[in-house]
Amino acid sequence: MSKKNGYAIGVDLGGTNIAAGIVNSSGKVILREKLPTMAHLGGKAVLGRIAQAISCLMQKTDPKIRKEIKGIGIGTPGLVDHKRGIVREPPNLPGMDGMNIKKYMETRFKLKTYLANDANAYAVGEHTFGAGKGTKNMVCITLGTGLGGGIIIDGKLYVGSFETAGELGHVIIRKEGIPCLCGSIGCVEPYVGANFIAERARKDIKNGKRSSIVKLVNGDLSKITPIIIEKAARQKDKYAKALWNEIGSEIGTALISIVNTLSPEMVVIGGGVSKAGDILFNPIKEKFNKIGFKFLRKRVKIVPGKLSDDAGVLGSSSLVWNHI
Amino acid sequence: MSKKNGYAIGVDLGGTNIAAGIVNSSGKVILREKLPTMAHLGGKAVLGRIAQAISCLMQKTDPKIRKEIKGIGIGTPGLVDHKRGIVREPPNLPGMDGMNIKKYMETRFKLKTYLANDANAYAVGEHTFGAGKGTKNMVCITLGTGLGGGIIIDGKLYVGSFETAGELGHVIIRKEGIPCLCGSIGCVEPYVGANFIAERARKDIKNGKRSSIVKLVNGDLSKITPIIIEKAARQKDKYAKALWNEIGSEIGTALISIVNTLSPEMVVIGGGVSKAGDILFNPIKEKFNKIGFKFLRKRVKIVPGKLSDDAGVLGSSSLVWNHI
Repeated sequence: MSKKNGYAIGVDLGGTNIAAGIVNSSGKVILREKLPTMAHLGGKAVLGRIAQAISCLMQKTDPKIRKEIKGIGIGTPGLVDHKRGIVREPPNLPGMDGMNIKKYMETRFKLKTYLANDANAYAVGEHTFGAGKGTKNMVCITLGTGLGGGIIIDGKLYVGSFETAGELGHVIIRKEGIPCLCGSIGCVEPYVGANFIAERARKDIKNGKRSSIVKLVNGDLSKITPIIIEKAARQKDKYAKALWNEIGSEIGTALISIVNTLSPEMVVIGGGVSKAGDILFNPIKEKFNKIGFKFLRKRVKIVPGKLSDDAGVLGSSSLVWNHI
Repeated sequence: MSKKNGYAIGVDLGGTNIAAGIVNSSGKVILREKLPTMAHLGGKAVLGRIAQAISCLMQKTDPKIRKEIKGIGIGTPGLVDHKRGIVREPPNLPGMDGMNIKKYMETRFKLKTYLANDANAYAVGEHTFGAGKGTKNMVCITLGTGLGGGIIIDGKLYVGSFETAGELGHVIIRKEGIPCLCGSIGCVEPYVGANFIAERARKDIKNGKRSSIVKLVNGDLSKITPIIIEKAARQKDKYAKALWNEIGSEIGTALISIVNTLSPEMVVIGGGVSKAGDILFNPIKEKFNKIGFKFLRKRVKIVPGKLSDDAGVLGSSSLVWNHI
């Protein structure tokens, strides 16, 4: 497509690091830059550091490529005012609350800048370059510390009337469940977040569950992570397998509500925790195939994300193409 | 709007009756027709009866108006293939399964015909003529025997990739809940359907709950309906009030999942059970205001539907305008 010729800058703003890159229109990162966010220095300083990352990329790249950069895409934690390009209440980056990132970058670099919530940016990335390429209606969830979401409708990011659509971690699976940080009760997020999974294993083991996890962390339970539990499950550890089955079943339950609402052709699942692979995907699909609408079971594809380590940068850069 | 000049025929196909009408572009029904569906005669006979209803309207109306009829909209139970105009697995109308209603009517009347699921048609009706007029993104639920849903995105009916979007009765509120007819577990529908509400009251009373409901039905518990329970609640019957509070809280829980997914500016609630009014709406809003996202509590409007007795015909007729 001619409209997609050229390059885009993608910036993945995180609580710890700022990852940036120049990405071509096929989704190849041709130049990378990474620097610590230094959130403790405050919002203005972080703005400056984002600009610095972009500046470095601009200076390092071939002037011919520099001329072909069509815009800047930035993925950020928190709520986003997309039109104005303002970020609101980003967890881990309290100093950035209310900052107009778009305006700052547009003034500084004379390049159209697009801001989105990081999970939304990831969804656009998977739709533009990854597993969801070519789909019309798609749902994307990211499994990490929390459960993020992004919705593509008619090929475009859907943010809804208040720009908060796709808060899929806050789909409720148990009305009488555990409290969620969002103030609600029984959201899926607290049942499947990375820390919850690890903490859950710690508690169970302390309460007498036998598992090879203990050996894998040399007895230091504080070292338990989803990756360790995955390792144990792959070694046929019964407890670890059962735990992943449960996590998958929780996610599958939320997916059924989401799919019954949106009827998407595909659900893409990415993020750190999703790297557990079939150990996680099998129980998700099992749940879906057991209690999802029969008509939808064979039709809706549930697939792992394809963007790997560069997911943040790729997703953010794809915001530029989503708007062109 | 000039494009909305003229009239549309709306047909509300039900298991018991076919209600049809000629509706002007402001949502006024200028002529009505009603006849029994006679589902037992089979699908072809029902097709003929729908045509008969339309025929009667055509013959009875002023020839000047007849010339200005822009199309036919039909709301039906079941899944719908919108493009082709085929209905699939309509409960109560098994003989209609697979029938191409659109083709039949277009051949017969030389008028563009649009088919939609009845809950979807109602959503379009509320958006075109009712409470949701002028909204961009809106969710509509109908409370009756079941809980139906319809989603308006960017001013148009959204049906998703498999034309099943808006199956909001099958948003799960309790992972370990009661079975649903759809094959899933813990869907909101079985907790709030009219029959469930009545059956619940019957059981509770049989188990010793004291309530003025008993007096209202002269001791014949089989006569309990949501309307009776509403009456009791309005008479300050403690049990009836508590039951409505619970129903409202179940619906509110599902709404939070839906709103967190879609970020609509409005949720319209209609259907027979919704006529309970504030007795139902107050606990729905209470739940929403207690555990919904703080940012959304004041923004998302939860309102009763405005289409009254003609809702089915109005909603179906509005499908014509939704497509023009």
